[in-house]
Amino acid sequence: MIRIITAQLDVRPGDIRENWRRIEEEIRRAKEARADVLVLPEMCLTGYLIGDLWDQSAFLRECEACNGRLAAASDDLIILWGSCAVDWDRIQDDGRVRKYNAAFAAAGGHFLFPRRSRRPYAVKTLLPNYRQFDDRRYFTSAAVLAAEEGRGLSDLLAPFDLPTKDGPVAAGVLLCEDSWDENYAVRPMDLLAAQQPDLFFNLSASPFTLGKNEKRHRMLTAALSRLGVPMLYVNCRGLQNNGKDCYTFDGMTAAYGRDGRLLGEAAPYEEARSAFLFDREARKLSPEVPMPPHEGDLLLAALRYGLSHFLEDIVASRAVIGVSGGIDSAVNAALYRSVLPADHLLLVNTPTQFNSETTKGLAADLAARLGSPYVTLPIGGFVDETARALASVVIRTREGERSLSPTSFMRENIQARDRSGRILAALAASFGGIFTCNANKTELTIGYATLYGDMAGALAATADLWKHQIYALGRALNDWYGEAVIPEGTFTIRPSAELSDAQAVDRGLGDPLVYDYHDYLFRSFVEPWQRATPEDILRWYAEGTLEAHIGTPLAVKDLFPSAAGFIADLEKWWKLFAGFAVAKRIQSPPLLAVSRRPYGYDLRESQLAPYFTDAYLALKEQLLK
Amino acid sequence: MIRIITAQLDVRPGDIRENWRRIEEEIRRAKEARADVLVLPEMCLTGYLIGDLWDQSAFLRECEACNGRLAAASDDLIILWGSCAVDWDRIQDDGRVRKYNAAFAAAGGHFLFPRRSRRPYAVKTLLPNYRQFDDRRYFTSAAVLAAEEGRGLSDLLAPFDLPTKDGPVAAGVLLCEDSWDENYAVRPMDLLAAQQPDLFFNLSASPFTLGKNEKRHRMLTAALSRLGVPMLYVNCRGLQNNGKDCYTFDGMTAAYGRDGRLLGEAAPYEEARSAFLFDREARKLSPEVPMPPHEGDLLLAALRYGLSHFLEDIVASRAVIGVSGGIDSAVNAALYRSVLPADHLLLVNTPTQFNSETTKGLAADLAARLGSPYVTLPIGGFVDETARALASVVIRTREGERSLSPTSFMRENIQARDRSGRILAALAASFGGIFTCNANKTELTIGYATLYGDMAGALAATADLWKHQIYALGRALNDWYGEAVIPEGTFTIRPSAELSDAQAVDRGLGDPLVYDYHDYLFRSFVEPWQRATPEDILRWYAEGTLEAHIGTPLAVKDLFPSAAGFIADLEKWWKLFAGFAVAKRIQSPPLLAVSRRPYGYDLRESQLAPYFTDAYLALKEQLLK
Repeated sequence: MIRIITAQLDVRPGDIRENWRRIEEEIRRAKEARADVLVLPEMCLTGYLIGDLWDQSAFLRECEACNGRLAAASDDLIILWGSCAVDWDRIQDDGRVRKYNAAFAAAGGHFLFPRRSRRPYAVKTLLPNYRQFDDRRYFTSAAVLAAEEGRGLSDLLAPFDLPTKDGPVAAGVLLCEDSWDENYAVRPMDLLAAQQPDLFFNLSASPFTLGKNEKRHRMLTAALSRLGVPMLYVNCRGLQNNGKDCYTFDGMTAAYGRDGRLLGEAAPYEEARSAFLFDREARKLSPEVPMPPHEGDLLLAALRYGLSHFLEDIVASRAVIGVSGGIDSAVNAALYRSVLPADHLLLVNTPTQFNSETTKGLAADLAARLGSPYVTLPIGGFVDETARALASVVIRTREGERSLSPTSFMRENIQARDRSGRILAALAASFGGIFTCNANKTELTIGYATLYGDMAGALAATADLWKHQIYALGRALNDWYGEAVIPEGTFTIRPSAELSDAQAVDRGLGDPLVYDYHDYLFRSFVEPWQRATPEDILRWYAEGTLEAHIGTPLAVKDLFPSAAGFIADLEKWWKLFAGFAVAKRIQSPPLLAVSRRPYGYDLRESQLAPYFTDAYLALKEQLLK
Repeated sequence: MIRIITAQLDVRPGDIRENWRRIEEEIRRAKEARADVLVLPEMCLTGYLIGDLWDQSAFLRECEACNGRLAAASDDLIILWGSCAVDWDRIQDDGRVRKYNAAFAAAGGHFLFPRRSRRPYAVKTLLPNYRQFDDRRYFTSAAVLAAEEGRGLSDLLAPFDLPTKDGPVAAGVLLCEDSWDENYAVRPMDLLAAQQPDLFFNLSASPFTLGKNEKRHRMLTAALSRLGVPMLYVNCRGLQNNGKDCYTFDGMTAAYGRDGRLLGEAAPYEEARSAFLFDREARKLSPEVPMPPHEGDLLLAALRYGLSHFLEDIVASRAVIGVSGGIDSAVNAALYRSVLPADHLLLVNTPTQFNSETTKGLAADLAARLGSPYVTLPIGGFVDETARALASVVIRTREGERSLSPTSFMRENIQARDRSGRILAALAASFGGIFTCNANKTELTIGYATLYGDMAGALAATADLWKHQIYALGRALNDWYGEAVIPEGTFTIRPSAELSDAQAVDRGLGDPLVYDYHDYLFRSFVEPWQRATPEDILRWYAEGTLEAHIGTPLAVKDLFPSAAGFIADLEKWWKLFAGFAVAKRIQSPPLLAVSRRPYGYDLRESQLAPYFTDAYLALKEQLLK
């Protein structure tokens, strides 16, 4: 029996020195635990989402040097790891030095070579280039390399023979996407399986997405049972970003038997070293100790982990949160409070004449329940003063004098900017921390927010959640605390921006959205693999299948008695989503990504004029007849 | 002799209907001019930089329908155009429907097929995936298709035989990158040349970059003289963006003889239909009328075109510009004034006690010279009031009460935010236009600017220009106007933010940068193909080759008498560049891209901890001994 230890390392992107230090520690522990094999995740030295840092030769040399140190440290312990391999003698398509996303193995202080390979590493074959992934921007695939060298891909995709104390173990080492082969012409697991591996390893740097692990289980169970090879899946932990989108990595190391069955799974987001036993003769893999399945809310775990990691990474330990009494700011406050000490949070209510006693009371109540300092800073005077300054301006042109008169809508935006860009920003600097953006995905979709106002902040922690998910997260947070830190009233009042008389919660006035419908409509614009447009929506509406297609719990007929009303609503929001809201998103803060399509670098957007297809216009005309 | 007309169409990204309308007009004109062939650029129906709009099936169907209409319109006129081809029966690697970046040809109302092809289009082979390009995210390459079908690439890369009145003309049709083959294993021009084409067409959607056209001429001259085939290069015009970066397309249709010589070039950014005669027997291409070379400043042309296009696209015709008397805001004001009527510009000076009479005078002078309305709005009172509000806050924690006291640095940021996020934003809304961000690339590099303050605005028109390029642009603008609209004093005062006593221009105090050195240092971090890091910089410094490597006109020894001083300066800026400045850039406005690496989607960045390699640290230790 050989003993395999997996380390779901918290990889710090771009920080090779720190990652090497963490890896050294894992090696020390594995040796201490008398492991035969230590398995580390993909890109464990450099991190995975590091943008165009791959253009820096010095960074590549540093990575290479650490690959060498890792091999030298192998000793009796066999080590498998993912890292960048550089071929300084070749270029890639972009004219830069050739780089591979590679899997390494070492034993006895030396690199191991895959069978028949001239290179001391295996090259990743499937390079994802969708969503947040840009592998083909940076790396050359094994398929390209094979074609270039006039060899078959199986020549390159060969197992490593690991020299274990029980004899050689043929290890088929895959890198992340290599196992997500459903849409590719090439199937790396099949090619490797044909070479009789004893065991698959999948080294991953796989960002968390709601529902993705379940999909992985289904997919791997199907593939492995067909191929009859067991697998150890090792994913990193940590928080990595591409600027706009911050992704958590959940770890969740998993073992699958040769029948494809999930044998055990490590706890998400936890520093976990798992030990597995492998019987080479029987090709039988088993966890050394039982691995109980994870319990609890994985979304909340992802957000709490991501948030605390983000704050740590930017060396911030204090936050100022504007709390209005509404659900978005309450959820953000409770979320931050779950990772920061009470006194490191400053909750600020900045009312004007439009804020109701109800919501002001809810904000104060929230602060009391969270035990954090709470300040009320009315901003009506500032807003009046800004408006007065504006009114005092006289513009002299050739045609004569002109003065400016801010409309009520402009006054709403002035309020929002005075609140965030002016007061919260200054408060945060004095308090010694950040201030937060409490946006949700619904308002981000249509730009129902003010730039430099409520769209400002160091992080928009909940901006990848639709409004109905914000409510659910509020409930999950109250469960997590074991008490209602978010007051019940915050769940039940009508959501409202309270920026004018037209948005008075006590009179039931508020946001111009029916979240149980619009959340789902907007989601269909953004998250499906083939994204919906007004043409699709209107066709489904005409067919009577819209509810089923977008998943809203409401009956569209009840909301919109006439086609004209339905169409006016659809066009209003589509124009904002595809138009001005894009301009706002360009300047929005980073967010914690959890969905299958967060705004930012995952859903890539150009500022364009909103478009309606000819087919849409024809169908509309028909429906309005 | 056949008559070929090229149209360097202003392609409106994402607006198929409008592009179709423009194309119809070109067809009408070409028929009127009795042309035999009309040539349109790459992706002339959809636009090229449209982000993930390619995920929308309805958009793809609309594009297909218009391809059909284009073919039907061909009639006696042969039409060549670039567009998206969809294969609904196949998927690509990302699981979505298969899309090709394709070249189409039609005659007599029908699509033409390339020789031996089953498809009525030629597929782009080289899909760029660097800088702003993401072709592999969206399209499948001819090389992949050939491998999939077990055919040679030359089978797919075959000429169209155009049925002209002089007999068939074998047209080798290339799409943009297909001719930029220097780093690729496959050379589409060579493969096509082997099939004896009479003429190459390159249909492009090639964004403007300083120096790129010269490179294209060198490259094509070398390739065409070797292959002995003439070429017509047709590029689109317009402004396209990927959110953060707005690229102009200069058109600049060009004809090259079979000896590779440039025969003529259309005027950049101008609506130009060029006519060429082609003698099929002699394979001789010639412009119908001489095409005189472009004169004037191409950078200024790009910026003016980009700016006016941007304003038109977002339907803005008025702008508010904060003018300080310094060079950045003066250049922006002069640039905007060059594309907007005088009264559509509102120039605003928002001084505090720190702004000198000198700069206030220069700002007023600038406004007078530009003839635009000018307003002075002192903001000292606002800043005091914000600071007082802050000082009034009492934070009650379990440990007792605490009040806040803004430091001088915080007051600087308050000034900047009160100026832009508060006053300019509100003024712009009332004035009925946008307000501008006057940032340059040097300050963007190190985040020497305040978020929601001077980093705010609808567009940062000059943010892809280093400070020395801003000065040069100021001179070019004065030349363009034929008078010194930007006062001489603005060129000669010490650049300063004037946010504190430490930045008094009249005492020669100002920015903590020596632009003639730091511009070049920072450029080396950003723009070379293999980007420099402190390790490279320090090695060059130690070797005495730094000036030559980065191109600064100054002698580094004069600036930094000691290695310690040099290193402290280097580390200070590197930490900002690779650290906090990234966080600021995530929320910065869109910019007009002109360099070979603008910030944004072109240089992709993650928020990371600044890194110094082991080799850097070792060299530093050695130098400090």
